[in-house]
Amino acid sequence: MRATVMYSAGDVRIEDVPDPSIVEPTDTLIRVARASICGSDLHPYHQMERSETGVRMGHEAVGVVEDVGDDVRTLNVGDLVVMPFAYSDGTCAFCREGLQTACVHVGFFGTDDVGGAQAEAVRVPYADGTLFVLPVGEDDALMPSLLTLSDVMGTGHHAAVVAGVSPGKSVAVVGDGAVGLCGVIAAKRLGAEQIIILGRHEDRIALAREFGATDVVSERGEEAVGRVRELTGGFGAHSVLECVGYGQAVATAIGIARPGGAVGRVGVPQDETIPASLPAFFGNVTVGGGPAPVRAYVEELLPDILEGRIEPGRVLDRAVGLDGVPEGYRAMDDREAIKVMVRL
Amino acid sequence: MRATVMYSAGDVRIEDVPDPSIVEPTDTLIRVARASICGSDLHPYHQMERSETGVRMGHEAVGVVEDVGDDVRTLNVGDLVVMPFAYSDGTCAFCREGLQTACVHVGFFGTDDVGGAQAEAVRVPYADGTLFVLPVGEDDALMPSLLTLSDVMGTGHHAAVVAGVSPGKSVAVVGDGAVGLCGVIAAKRLGAEQIIILGRHEDRIALAREFGATDVVSERGEEAVGRVRELTGGFGAHSVLECVGYGQAVATAIGIARPGGAVGRVGVPQDETIPASLPAFFGNVTVGGGPAPVRAYVEELLPDILEGRIEPGRVLDRAVGLDGVPEGYRAMDDREAIKVMVRL
Repeated sequence: MRATVMYSAGDVRIEDVPDPSIVEPTDTLIRVARASICGSDLHPYHQMERSETGVRMGHEAVGVVEDVGDDVRTLNVGDLVVMPFAYSDGTCAFCREGLQTACVHVGFFGTDDVGGAQAEAVRVPYADGTLFVLPVGEDDALMPSLLTLSDVMGTGHHAAVVAGVSPGKSVAVVGDGAVGLCGVIAAKRLGAEQIIILGRHEDRIALAREFGATDVVSERGEEAVGRVRELTGGFGAHSVLECVGYGQAVATAIGIARPGGAVGRVGVPQDETIPASLPAFFGNVTVGGGPAPVRAYVEELLPDILEGRIEPGRVLDRAVGLDGVPEGYRAMDDREAIKVMVRL
Repeated sequence: MRATVMYSAGDVRIEDVPDPSIVEPTDTLIRVARASICGSDLHPYHQMERSETGVRMGHEAVGVVEDVGDDVRTLNVGDLVVMPFAYSDGTCAFCREGLQTACVHVGFFGTDDVGGAQAEAVRVPYADGTLFVLPVGEDDALMPSLLTLSDVMGTGHHAAVVAGVSPGKSVAVVGDGAVGLCGVIAAKRLGAEQIIILGRHEDRIALAREFGATDVVSERGEEAVGRVRELTGGFGAHSVLECVGYGQAVATAIGIARPGGAVGRVGVPQDETIPASLPAFFGNVTVGGGPAPVRAYVEELLPDILEGRIEPGRVLDRAVGLDGVPEGYRAMDDREAIKVMVRL
């Protein structure tokens, strides 16, 4: 089959690779219907050292079940499923608590182990625990939004949950990428009264406003902190969604949090330490978050997508075929596209 | 009057200073009945550069109201009161939310502004909001425990609250100082099933066991992390109380937290950054805490002290008169005493 392989920073290729097949009896094989490129795929696109064998890319997909292992109980050939970016057994203590990204058998797509989703097919371990059957056909107009349940919408929602968004709260979202935009959707959905987005890309800000952002702060660093304080009666935001991952963004997130407030980090951290230890401490600001248990959130978010109350698929503002994936990386890296969908 | 003044690291003196008096109509003057030396007083005791004028010390006290300003409504001369380490107006948004340490008028004792509590008397700003009237006389046998409501017991409780201690949870307490020991009391009181204390001082560990600690880990760093994991089924503790403040202790606290767990920091941070950003993120571990709103906790903790269910006063294992305060600092610094009470 054909799949996306990255060989070094900036070097993304579509290549023939061996077809995946059932390895464990709990595996399922899916044919990928839609995949997408994640902001976190851009980290190796910037930094990866040359590899002879390359790395298989992609961890976000909706697909159709093609084959099931002998122990798979809940899935049938032909089911349309959303594939969370991490696989999980569905039965361990962490899965039962709804933290599937800490599953004792957790693993991630886009690795040599299971391959990537920017490909014609993927082997899915622990398929009963991992996959979620969708009640629509693969040509449904809602496919882009359904695809976001595999990562970006669940991730934005996780930031909002960890940051304690609830009705009447003031919320600040650091970052206007696809995750930040989904964070705005999540904050609005959870009843936030004020939603401030920190970002400076006109097209993204316009979309953020459509999603429910009430205020925009285009300053950075100390100026951004001052501006958010002005917008929140001098105190800062109850809930801050950190959707970038760089130290400066985390410091800003802590700086704009109201005393007693919370920061939900979902941007993959690029630093060994969390900055602003003293401001966080003296403000009793909580810093939480991590890889989102998107599998846990599908059930909660799906009805709102099916009934049109939220449209996270709008962050996928460009679509390519599999051959267009390298160009998709470039377009996202150059900020020409917010997020790229791959149609197979 | 006589008061404690620190002039530089290790140089603590008892001196005559001007008597305090009512400045604002919301002030109250209290005669100090009992004060104590805080672990945080040892930071300047180690590091303070020489000052010509010195710094007035002490922020933990129980006292008797001697004079009230014209606008004080709830206090009367002769009332026995607990004085939280921070003063707060009792009426702002943060006070109403129970985060008095973020009060818009917050200030701290042991400063030139209001003087310190290791003294014969103190001026207390915003007295209605700050002080809490105790229903006992000043010679009551419970005085040491009541004194801990001014800081150390409320601080241990805050760590437990922020770390999400609740019935059935596993809890780890990093640090066997007075705050850590009160953290053990708080964890037990909130229903923790397992309470692991990390420390290596025999007398303190013995007291921790009496307070409810079920396990002791005397290792440090990576070895401590491994040991706590062993004791918690391989996963770490749901709730971790960080009662030290040094970077190594915070890194250990994050390292021993269960995925999805929480660290409550109450040790005053000695570093600009929070270590272990990546382990915290990939484990979805929340890091919170800060200066405890002890004023908010008095009402909750007081009945348990009055009815003998908790005895936090046992952490005060040495008592001195005001003249003995310099020796008290030395004894705490040399770990001869866990915490020193001052009788006036």
